[in-house]
Amino acid sequence: MTLLPCVANQSLIDHHCHGVVRTDVDRAEFEALLTEADGVSPLGTSLFDSMVGLAVRRWCAPVLDLPPHASVDNYLARRAELGATEVNRRFLAASGTSDLLVDGGFQPERSTDTDELAALSGKTIHEIVRLETLAEGVAATGVSAADFATRCAEALALRARTAVGCKSIAAYRVGLRLAGARPTDAEVRAAAGRWLASAGPRRLADETLHRFLIWLALDERLPVQFHVGIGDADLDLAECDPLLLTGLLRATRDTGVPILLLHNYPFHRNAAYLAQVFPHVYVDIGLATHNVGRRSGALVAELLEIAPFGKVLYSSDAFGLAEHYYLGAQRFRSGLSEFLAAGLADESWTELDAGHITRLIGQRNARRAYAPRLSNERSVN
Amino acid sequence: MTLLPCVANQSLIDHHCHGVVRTDVDRAEFEALLTEADGVSPLGTSLFDSMVGLAVRRWCAPVLDLPPHASVDNYLARRAELGATEVNRRFLAASGTSDLLVDGGFQPERSTDTDELAALSGKTIHEIVRLETLAEGVAATGVSAADFATRCAEALALRARTAVGCKSIAAYRVGLRLAGARPTDAEVRAAAGRWLASAGPRRLADETLHRFLIWLALDERLPVQFHVGIGDADLDLAECDPLLLTGLLRATRDTGVPILLLHNYPFHRNAAYLAQVFPHVYVDIGLATHNVGRRSGALVAELLEIAPFGKVLYSSDAFGLAEHYYLGAQRFRSGLSEFLAAGLADESWTELDAGHITRLIGQRNARRAYAPRLSNERSVN
Amino acid sequence: MTLLPCVANQSLIDHHCHGVVRTDVDRAEFEALLTEADGVSPLGTSLFDSMVGLAVRRWCAPVLDLPPHASVDNYLARRAELGATEVNRRFLAASGTSDLLVDGGFQPERSTDTDELAALSGKTIHEIVRLETLAEGVAATGVSAADFATRCAEALALRARTAVGCKSIAAYRVGLRLAGARPTDAEVRAAAGRWLASAGPRRLADETLHRFLIWLALDERLPVQFHVGIGDADLDLAECDPLLLTGLLRATRDTGVPILLLHNYPFHRNAAYLAQVFPHVYVDIGLATHNVGRRSGALVAELLEIAPFGKVLYSSDAFGLAEHYYLGAQRFRSGLSEFLAAGLADESWTELDAGHITRLIGQRNARRAYAPRLSNERSVN
Repeated sequence: MTLLPCVANQSLIDHHCHGVVRTDVDRAEFEALLTEADGVSPLGTSLFDSMVGLAVRRWCAPVLDLPPHASVDNYLARRAELGATEVNRRFLAASGTSDLLVDGGFQPERSTDTDELAALSGKTIHEIVRLETLAEGVAATGVSAADFATRCAEALALRARTAVGCKSIAAYRVGLRLAGARPTDAEVRAAAGRWLASAGPRRLADETLHRFLIWLALDERLPVQFHVGIGDADLDLAECDPLLLTGLLRATRDTGVPILLLHNYPFHRNAAYLAQVFPHVYVDIGLATHNVGRRSGALVAELLEIAPFGKVLYSSDAFGLAEHYYLGAQRFRSGLSEFLAAGLADESWTELDAGHITRLIGQRNARRAYAPRLSNERSVN
Repeated sequence: MTLLPCVANQSLIDHHCHGVVRTDVDRAEFEALLTEADGVSPLGTSLFDSMVGLAVRRWCAPVLDLPPHASVDNYLARRAELGATEVNRRFLAASGTSDLLVDGGFQPERSTDTDELAALSGKTIHEIVRLETLAEGVAATGVSAADFATRCAEALALRARTAVGCKSIAAYRVGLRLAGARPTDAEVRAAAGRWLASAGPRRLADETLHRFLIWLALDERLPVQFHVGIGDADLDLAECDPLLLTGLLRATRDTGVPILLLHNYPFHRNAAYLAQVFPHVYVDIGLATHNVGRRSGALVAELLEIAPFGKVLYSSDAFGLAEHYYLGAQRFRSGLSEFLAAGLADESWTELDAGHITRLIGQRNARRAYAPRLSNERSVN
Repeated sequence: MTLLPCVANQSLIDHHCHGVVRTDVDRAEFEALLTEADGVSPLGTSLFDSMVGLAVRRWCAPVLDLPPHASVDNYLARRAELGATEVNRRFLAASGTSDLLVDGGFQPERSTDTDELAALSGKTIHEIVRLETLAEGVAATGVSAADFATRCAEALALRARTAVGCKSIAAYRVGLRLAGARPTDAEVRAAAGRWLASAGPRRLADETLHRFLIWLALDERLPVQFHVGIGDADLDLAECDPLLLTGLLRATRDTGVPILLLHNYPFHRNAAYLAQVFPHVYVDIGLATHNVGRRSGALVAELLEIAPFGKVLYSSDAFGLAEHYYLGAQRFRSGLSEFLAAGLADESWTELDAGHITRLIGQRNARRAYAPRLSNERSVN
């Protein structure tokens, strides 16, 4: 299906993505990065036997000069032949994005950092602070429980000079059943004391401290992204329904600082409800968009049933494989175009409406959500 | 898409709706009444940027003599020109409904009451008793805890002379995690005592008392409607899944008195399951039907996957804007027609079947559910 | 719609089904067996007023030499005329299955047993051990709490000589909120003691004992099926979300023994997630497939969004009416064909891909999941 011109030509702000692996990957590594599974299971088959696997062969193969539906072997051979840098460059270029908001906190050692990503892509890169990484960095300095809150605040204030937003991965650590209220100084101190006194690596997983960090970000007026919905087997998906955030959303509403619910699948209709009734809530369907391959249109349609068009963003959640940058954008454009074309076909809306909705979701909502930090740097669209 | 004739010609019983605002509304008020959001957010855009907003411009504009897809400004100007009374009259007439079952308990001061609605619409109006309003009225008389239960029973018996059913908004006050058992006299007395002794306005929000009122309605053999699923930001949607009512449905099954699950989105598949396995449970997809605009067909199809056709009703949940009366019906007819036409196209069923299903959902199920109170007053279809 | 040839010609392994009623059934019995409702409700209409009812008239009627869309009366008259044995034989033959994995533990007294089903169908029958029935059988011998665990292990070891897998109906008894850890001997002994000391019929409903039995099956390296999602009014659907099994799946992952999530509707997207991230988890959409009639394609598409194609199985969950054997297969083939044809039409995949996916889901995944017990007996495809 050809894309509607308004969608095909719309440059996207990818408001949540990560670095890509710098080096060549073999088949096992490629499959491990393809879905949320750790890797191929002896009880299953190749992970190319999936919607995203089919989408890679259909849509990514041509970017590497192969025919659509190239075999997996041919695809991986061509990928190796071109080399990681060229492959990464091609997919980033093909994504049709103007700005990338990058969370560099996941597996930084083997991924491109911000500068590398900027060089590879030629795009404007913006920084997202992963709150848990920041707190773990503070903990690693040997801080006392009494000083923990202040040190975190200082560290975040420093990052806020350049970053455009923060991200919470509470979903992965304690789930989204977070209380609403800002924790008191005494509560933070007590929780920090328990955490800092614990043995082993300092992996933050404490409801009070996740909540403390979120309020810290809001104090800095930094928009806060939340991982919501699907992820890898580390999380408990039953605890990642966005509706579990209702109390926190109610408590933070009056700050007027945006809260951005990422991914959301398979709870995207729940997230859309929150975007309708809470003035500061935005949603996307990132990660799912490329995972589901040709079903992206179904997801876009479900998301847009009750989410106001002014509160929906685009993200790829690309990580590891540069294919995800391209597929995320390509599948999102396809899904949005399918959604809009259906309404044009039965005259539910006009081409002007379709163009307006595309601009909102592709660029304008993100610039508004991350203003003034993002809009000040505006260079594209 | 043209409607199937059997659907286009089917007069509907709207088994759950409210009054409309009597007076002209400005743009801010219109947008505040358009969705479940309190109003336009500075972080979003106009709430006309939504499926329901597009549907108003597409479908409501012609009812006001404007071309489809009229601009928002032109739409609101024409609305003001015609005046609230004429606008209300037109949309009520265009809805193609025969009977309205009206819950007058929400914002009565600025909405049309039963008589006004009857005069405006020329339709048969039936009364639904909002249980919490009834109890709050009893509380306002200065009743003692010891007399509370009896006074409520008396008040409901009085209303039962004319009303056709009751409604519980427990979802808004305490959520749907209600116990099944009828509370004992002592439990009701204790709960009433706590409530009546509390300071501030007498807003009922007590699990025991909501449950008490529901059993009171069943004693009167009055069908009980439940708000389920989406609503405004006052509710906690995680606590509004109809499956939370399973214990209560099991406990009330043998009464044989209908329980009607309203709205249900995004949990409508869960509600459909309850309608299949519990003999006294009915479902609708009201409120969502107009909220989702051209996606109403997707919702109807999901609802009807496992809900028996003999247990599905139509409602608009119209409130405030008369547009919702028309859009609710128009989008429902469109969705049902789309669903039925798809099955006719691949010969999954016949035109006779389509007509039969339409009559069940449009009229007959409601007459059976609210019999003998509703069917005795039958005047249309 | 005609089926894709690759789907039409694919012989299916039905990895979860039950016996059929041996004798003729009247209309009330037929309707009681048609859906998950106990029977027709005076507040509803005939249960033929449902998607599955329409599907019976459309698809089953021709198998009994009637025209499509035969009336209910004609259908039931013809059914009676042919007699239960001939009707059962026809539908089993028409299902196009090669192997049936039969759980004989549900209402065995009026259903065909394994030998009868083999004789009727001419298919290879494999035995699934219902764990709760096994434990209830052990309890009925008057075993002591101290010996209970050993007697269960012995009984299961005996069954494991011929059975290919086990099934847990914890969903029906205590819900799926099961802990992960293998219970200790002392815990099992204590729980058995409480259960064996209780009065009344020995119906197992104890979280510790359900979990004990599951681990026992894994010790025998017998794949474990779980009832998940919809069922009759005995279960509490809110407690049957597959995500509630996350802890148990995490705990059992390293056993490498398959866990198979049955039915899953309306939580099939949640189940698909588990099949993606847990190496030993398989999913199906049985029971729902025939319940939803012509909507089976929507369910297949939702299931396959993120479930790897190597982890999806076919089952009918046929019980009672032989129609369900045929409808389950027919609706599944239709749904899969619809899904695959849509992707062929827009060139999302090739015919080779479609054939490969069909073979995986129709046969190969089941042979792999139940290997070596099932594959050793391979006779068909």
